[in-house]
Amino acid sequence: MSTPTQGTPPTNPSATVSTTGPVLVVGSGLLGTSLALALSAAGVEVQLEDTSPTSLALARDMGAGRPRDPQDEEPRLVVVATPPDVAAAVVIDQLAAHPGAVVTDVASVKERVAAEVSASAGRQARRYVGSHPMAGRERSGAGAADADLFVGRPWVVVAEGSAPEAELAVRNLVVDVGATPVRMGAAEHDAAVAAVSHVPQLVSSLLAARLEGLPENALSLAGQGLRDTTRIAASDPRLWSAIVVGNAGPVTGILRQIRDDLDRLIDGVSAAALPPGSPQLAAPGRAAVLAPGAVGAVTDVMTRGGAGRARIPGKHGGAPRRYAEVQVLVPDSAGSLGRLFSDVGDLGVNIEDFDMEHSAGQSVGIATLSVLPSAAQALEKALDARGWRVVVA
Amino acid sequence: MSTPTQGTPPTNPSATVSTTGPVLVVGSGLLGTSLALALSAAGVEVQLEDTSPTSLALARDMGAGRPRDPQDEEPRLVVVATPPDVAAAVVIDQLAAHPGAVVTDVASVKERVAAEVSASAGRQARRYVGSHPMAGRERSGAGAADADLFVGRPWVVVAEGSAPEAELAVRNLVVDVGATPVRMGAAEHDAAVAAVSHVPQLVSSLLAARLEGLPENALSLAGQGLRDTTRIAASDPRLWSAIVVGNAGPVTGILRQIRDDLDRLIDGVSAAALPPGSPQLAAPGRAAVLAPGAVGAVTDVMTRGGAGRARIPGKHGGAPRRYAEVQVLVPDSAGSLGRLFSDVGDLGVNIEDFDMEHSAGQSVGIATLSVLPSAAQALEKALDARGWRVVVA
Repeated sequence: MSTPTQGTPPTNPSATVSTTGPVLVVGSGLLGTSLALALSAAGVEVQLEDTSPTSLALARDMGAGRPRDPQDEEPRLVVVATPPDVAAAVVIDQLAAHPGAVVTDVASVKERVAAEVSASAGRQARRYVGSHPMAGRERSGAGAADADLFVGRPWVVVAEGSAPEAELAVRNLVVDVGATPVRMGAAEHDAAVAAVSHVPQLVSSLLAARLEGLPENALSLAGQGLRDTTRIAASDPRLWSAIVVGNAGPVTGILRQIRDDLDRLIDGVSAAALPPGSPQLAAPGRAAVLAPGAVGAVTDVMTRGGAGRARIPGKHGGAPRRYAEVQVLVPDSAGSLGRLFSDVGDLGVNIEDFDMEHSAGQSVGIATLSVLPSAAQALEKALDARGWRVVVA
Repeated sequence: MSTPTQGTPPTNPSATVSTTGPVLVVGSGLLGTSLALALSAAGVEVQLEDTSPTSLALARDMGAGRPRDPQDEEPRLVVVATPPDVAAAVVIDQLAAHPGAVVTDVASVKERVAAEVSASAGRQARRYVGSHPMAGRERSGAGAADADLFVGRPWVVVAEGSAPEAELAVRNLVVDVGATPVRMGAAEHDAAVAAVSHVPQLVSSLLAARLEGLPENALSLAGQGLRDTTRIAASDPRLWSAIVVGNAGPVTGILRQIRDDLDRLIDGVSAAALPPGSPQLAAPGRAAVLAPGAVGAVTDVMTRGGAGRARIPGKHGGAPRRYAEVQVLVPDSAGSLGRLFSDVGDLGVNIEDFDMEHSAGQSVGIATLSVLPSAAQALEKALDARGWRVVVA
C-alpha cells in the first residue's frame, strides 16, 4: 500500500537568467506568446508587437508582456515569431528599426530566411542569428501558448555569418527558457527538418487522405498503427503549406526518393495481384510462388524501414535503448490508472515510457509500461500479486 | 492524499463459454498460441499441431494445450493459425482430415483464402468460415503469446458460402476469448484492412527507410511526430510480405492513389524550389508569391488528410470524441507518474487517454491526460494546488 507524497515539480529552468532585457517579441502566435510567457516568468522585460490587435491583447492579458510603445527603451534582442513566409521580411525590418539589437527568428526553415536577410541587410545581417525551437503543438495561436513549451526541447541555432556576441545572446535566450541549443548550418538544418518533420507530416497526410472515402465499418477495424501513423495529419494546413513551400528543395528531394521506392513497391506487388476467379487461385499458396518479386519488394522496403526506424534516438537523446514492456489490463474507471502507477511507484520502478490502448466495444484498456529490462520480471510478479491481470510476454 | 486500493482486474471474459471442445489449433505462433491459451484458461480442451516440434513444445509448456495424437477425440472446431501464404492449403487439408469439424483460419487476407478453399474443397467448403482477429504485436512467436491478446478487439467473421451452424461455432469462439465479432464479406474485409492496416504499414516503412542515410545530428531533432509515424516500421518483414502479397490487388489500388497524390504534391511543391543564390531570394517572402500552386498542393493534401484522420473512431468504437487535454510536467524519477495518477484518482477523474513525451537532454517529461471537457478545468486547478506544473492550454 503506498502513501503517495505531493507531486514534486521539476527544477525551475529559469533559476539563473542570462538574458538581460528588454526583449521585443514580434508575433503573438503559439511560439511568440509561449516565449514571451517564459521570459516574463523569468523576470525579463518583454515588449510585444503583432499586426493583429486581438492577438496582441490576448498575449498581454495572458501575462506575456506589454505592447511596445515608441517611447519604450530600445530592445537588446528582437525575436521574430511570425508565420515562416514573412519571417525574412520582418527580420529585415527589425534590423533596420533597432540598429543596436540582435535579431533572431523562430521559423522552421533557415536557409531561405538567411539568404534573404543577407541579400537585403548586407553588413547588418551580422546582428541576425537564425534559430528554430523543435517545439509545437497541434493547436496554434496565443490561446494555446505555454511558458513551458520549450522545456527539454532541442533548439537549433544557425549563426553562419553572425557576430559571436549575437550568437551568444540567442544561445542565452534558448537556455533561459529551458531548451537545449543545437548548432547547425542553415542547409544542414533544412535537410534535417525536411526528413524528420516536414516529409513525415506530408506522408501522414497522404496516408490519412485515403480514409476520406472509406466505409464506416472499415474504419471500425482501425488499430493503434493507423492512429499513430495519422496522428499528425490533424495539423494546420495553412501553417504547414508555408513551411513546406519555404523548404521546397529538401522536401521534394526526399519525396522523390519515396516516390522511387513507392514505384518499385507498386511494380513488385502488382505482379501478385490476380483478378478474382483467376485459375491460379485454385492452386493453394500460389501467390508467393507466382510473384517472388512481390515478396522481395515488400521485404526490401520493410527491412530498410526497420533499419531507419532503429536509428531514431531514444529518450533523453541517447542511443535507442531497448526497454522491457510490461502489459497490464486496466478497467475503464476513475482511479484505475492511479492505482496501477501507485503500485508501480511502491516498487521503486521508474516508468521510462507508457502507452495506453483502447479497443472497440470493451471497457478495458491495455497499459504498456516500458521499464529497464532488469526491473521487468519483478514488476510483473509484484503486479500479479496485487491482483492485476498482467499480460505475459 | 489517496489511499489506493488493490487493482481490480476486469471481469473474466470467459465466464460463460459457448465453445464445446475439443478445439484443434494448427500453428503455434503468436495468434495460435494466444488463442489456445485463452481457450485452455476457459476450460476448453485444446489440441495443438505445428510443423515445428520446437514451437509445439513451447506452446505446450506455456499451458496452451497438448499436441494432438491420432488416437485423440475428433475436434469439433479446427483453427488454422499458420502464416497467411499457406493458410488456404492447410484449411483444405484440415477439411479433408476432419470431415465432421468446422474449420476456420485467422489469416489477415480473406478473399484469396476463400477462393482457394472454395475451388479445391467444393461442397466441403460449407464447413469453412474465414476469420481475422484485429490483434497482434510487433513481436511474433509462441513466446510472445498472451491469453488476453483478443480481449476487446474486433474479430472479423467472413461466412459467405458457409453453413449457418459453422458461422455460429466461429462466432462463439470469438466471444469466448473476449473479442467482438464483426461480420463482413471477404472482398469488403480485404479492402478495409488494406486501407487501415496494410497500406499504413508500407507507408510507415517507406518513410522510415529515408532515415537510413540521415546524419546523426539530424536524427537528434526527431520529435513525437516522427516517432509516431514510424513506430510500426519496426514490424516483421517476413510476415508482412506474405500479408501484402496475399492482398496485392486492394493494396496496390490504394498505393496507386497515394502515388497520384504524391505526384501532384511533388509537382506543386517543386515549383517553389529555387536554386541557392537565386535572384528571387533577394526579395523577401517571394516563395509563396512565386508558387501559389505549391501552397495549393500542400493545402489540398493536408485538408483531405485532416478530414480522413477525423473519421477514425475514438475509444470504445464510438464516434470520435473531443477530450480536453491537461498537460503536466513530470520529473523523471521513480514514482512521479504514480503520484500524478494517484492525485488524479483522488479527484474521481477518469483518464480517457494518456501520452508521455520525452525530449533530448532533459530529465523531465510532459504527460498529456485526456479527460472529459467538463472535468478539465477543475483538474488543472487541483493539480496546480498540489504542486504540479500544469501547462496552461
